[in-house]
Amino acid sequence: MKRAILWLSLVSIGWSQDWTSRLDPVRQHAMESDYSYHFLSRLCHQVGPRLSGSPAADAAVDLVEKEMQQIGLKTRRQSCQVPHWVRGREEAELTEYSGKPANVRMPLVLTTLGGSSSTGEQGLNAQLLLVESFAQLEALPDQQVRGKIVLFNTRFDQRLADQGRGGAAYSQSVASRTRGPAAASKKGAAACLVRAVGGADFRLPHTGVTSFGETQRIPCAAVSSEDAERMAYLSKLGPVQLRLVITAQNLPDAPSCNIIGDLEGSDPNAEVVIVSGHLDSWDVGTGALDDAAGVATALQVAQTFRALGLKPRRTLRVIGWMNEENGGAGAKAYDKETEGKNHFAAVESDLGCGHCLGFSCWTPSYWLAALKPVSQCLQAIGGNQLETSNGAGADISPLGARGVPCFNPMLDSRTYFHYHHTPADTVDKVDPQHLRQNGAMMSVLAWALCSMDRPKAP
Amino acid sequence: MKRAILWLSLVSIGWSQDWTSRLDPVRQHAMESDYSYHFLSRLCHQVGPRLSGSPAADAAVDLVEKEMQQIGLKTRRQSCQVPHWVRGREEAELTEYSGKPANVRMPLVLTTLGGSSSTGEQGLNAQLLLVESFAQLEALPDQQVRGKIVLFNTRFDQRLADQGRGGAAYSQSVASRTRGPAAASKKGAAACLVRAVGGADFRLPHTGVTSFGETQRIPCAAVSSEDAERMAYLSKLGPVQLRLVITAQNLPDAPSCNIIGDLEGSDPNAEVVIVSGHLDSWDVGTGALDDAAGVATALQVAQTFRALGLKPRRTLRVIGWMNEENGGAGAKAYDKETEGKNHFAAVESDLGCGHCLGFSCWTPSYWLAALKPVSQCLQAIGGNQLETSNGAGADISPLGARGVPCFNPMLDSRTYFHYHHTPADTVDKVDPQHLRQNGAMMSVLAWALCSMDRPKAP
Repeated sequence: MKRAILWLSLVSIGWSQDWTSRLDPVRQHAMESDYSYHFLSRLCHQVGPRLSGSPAADAAVDLVEKEMQQIGLKTRRQSCQVPHWVRGREEAELTEYSGKPANVRMPLVLTTLGGSSSTGEQGLNAQLLLVESFAQLEALPDQQVRGKIVLFNTRFDQRLADQGRGGAAYSQSVASRTRGPAAASKKGAAACLVRAVGGADFRLPHTGVTSFGETQRIPCAAVSSEDAERMAYLSKLGPVQLRLVITAQNLPDAPSCNIIGDLEGSDPNAEVVIVSGHLDSWDVGTGALDDAAGVATALQVAQTFRALGLKPRRTLRVIGWMNEENGGAGAKAYDKETEGKNHFAAVESDLGCGHCLGFSCWTPSYWLAALKPVSQCLQAIGGNQLETSNGAGADISPLGARGVPCFNPMLDSRTYFHYHHTPADTVDKVDPQHLRQNGAMMSVLAWALCSMDRPKAP
Repeated sequence: MKRAILWLSLVSIGWSQDWTSRLDPVRQHAMESDYSYHFLSRLCHQVGPRLSGSPAADAAVDLVEKEMQQIGLKTRRQSCQVPHWVRGREEAELTEYSGKPANVRMPLVLTTLGGSSSTGEQGLNAQLLLVESFAQLEALPDQQVRGKIVLFNTRFDQRLADQGRGGAAYSQSVASRTRGPAAASKKGAAACLVRAVGGADFRLPHTGVTSFGETQRIPCAAVSSEDAERMAYLSKLGPVQLRLVITAQNLPDAPSCNIIGDLEGSDPNAEVVIVSGHLDSWDVGTGALDDAAGVATALQVAQTFRALGLKPRRTLRVIGWMNEENGGAGAKAYDKETEGKNHFAAVESDLGCGHCLGFSCWTPSYWLAALKPVSQCLQAIGGNQLETSNGAGADISPLGARGVPCFNPMLDSRTYFHYHHTPADTVDKVDPQHLRQNGAMMSVLAWALCSMDRPKAP
């Protein structure tokens, strides 16, 4: 009888009282753990860049699966077909402009955009057409665009990023990369360059996906901000001629998968809570910030629960998503299979590894009051901000659109877009203490989400 | 009679009293001038990188000569033979290491060092040998070095640079670049890599000259700090194997020259005052900080004097030096011809274009008192520090060694070694206001040096 009463109390009110006592130990364990940093180092140094469809992406699945099993998670692979785009040569040089000395070569620093077509090995020669905006391009008659290499010279607003709004700065300028090449193609351009979407000034081009939809693919690449400035200067003096060689290939879609690891909840009727990051990365760096940090942080949650011997009420589901960068095939596959059913919440960390600030919550606002113990616990590490938002990480967005509450760590983003999608996204960009903070923040939130009662509308 | 007295007073005491009245107008003109920035933009954007022996180095001579003539200087070319080193392909990848997944390629980001020999198109495969210091290399038996690719993993002390001692930080670590490959060659290494000498973390390798002397040349390159860190990590796990392709060429020396422009002094018996920067640059960026800024600043001095209608007492000699970066052939030719005779002083600006701080003076310390009017005038722009030193810019050092008083602008060097010798040394790194400051600082000092009496030992 005593047992039955205890059980009843756990189910009815016990969890909602008891779970908060676990928060501080959870935070504390994660803050003292080097687990996620060691894992991230292995993933980035040994496996390296992990573009969808590449052998390294497969190797990342293997590594994370093994890691999940070592922690004691029940794993499964969830199949999906991913785009298989392969970078080739990428060369450009200014062949003619006003004041060019004879026999001088003027190479540009560029990086092909994911989805670009090829110029062929022979390359192409064409005149530069510089535009500052979509409106400016649209206003031009097609015959002025036809056969030219369009350059979108849209500047990244680092001042906006400097004061913490890196995501907003990125959103402002990324359209030139995602939609610029298609817009140029529609008007008959031979190729398209975009000024790199990022705020650092180290001759770094930022790669990323571009979308052609039904429009005919053309060769396209990001050039460094320095080269964009130079072309802007020379364009004012007279016509500028370029030579461009891009030998990227769009191969048939390749088989791949998400890797999913469950730590089963104590309540078989309870829902699932997802913590996640994405496995794939761009091919130019080693994807430390984008998004080995997210994967490592998600694994840290499970490692923390296991190390403390905590059995969550709801099932903790760690997901390493595949193909966030250029297609979202993993997210689509998951959403198609689950339709968001039986999901209490989903968390994805995909904004690097800056100092932790808190969480943005794609939930009704009354959830914030219910999460007050979380913010109280995270105050010790500065991660106690909770804000509602109307969106979430790319991989959990489909679930969010179905009404699953979604959460994203808010991280200091002032320098994230310096490194994002560049060769410089490497392990040294991750401050071990920041990674611990993120692991702690994610672990505390995950414990709350696994444990709390569903908040009720007031 | 009146005239004779006036003339006498100008010669005997007039100059020493009157010249100080010109300092403020000189500073003011330069601070309001965009001349040097426009010139620098042309040199970097239109001519581009200017490695000794290249067509662009010749074009730089032409451009600067024309510019000097436009200002009204009497120009001449001073011949010299310069090393003619040409960069070729430069590729490296990690082919084997502990935990390497199958079929994964692991390229490194590298830049060949000036003076490197070639691996041949076929490249070379060898095991990595990582050392942290010369002492560590020396302590190894030759047979442990023979046939290996030595990596000098010497870190640049950015904390030292952060607090203004960029030059000191550079001096600490640059030896691995200048002497490391020769040291490795002596012990039979197949090739040598050095960790890039610079403090930024944007996967930027820093090129520069390396010296073999009588030692046999081997292929050598700088790798980015990130790649050095990665190799350090992997080396701890087991043997690391590399593939290296470097196709640099050491061609026969090429004819080149310094370009010299004189603004004749009013006193035919007076000595010469040099203001200068170097024309040549490394081939990877466009040499804006190193050293278009110095050349532009030196030209600004002459432009200022001419614009204000000032005729200096001593001849102002503007020099664009050739081959500072890899041989100093221009400096040697000048020194050989002049032997420092009839030179009152020499100034060279070759530390980029940070905020101006003042001058380091390779002079007896009693010169500082004589230059007090200079520092008073420069206080308005923050450039009033005067310090003695025991060295000067590479091109004027031979004169300094002969006893010619030498001066170097002291400039904020906290970020100079981020960009130095990298693809990111481009126009945007030059703040127009800083360039104006430097032009003003150099013009004021030059006016003083052209006008003042020779300071007397107390």
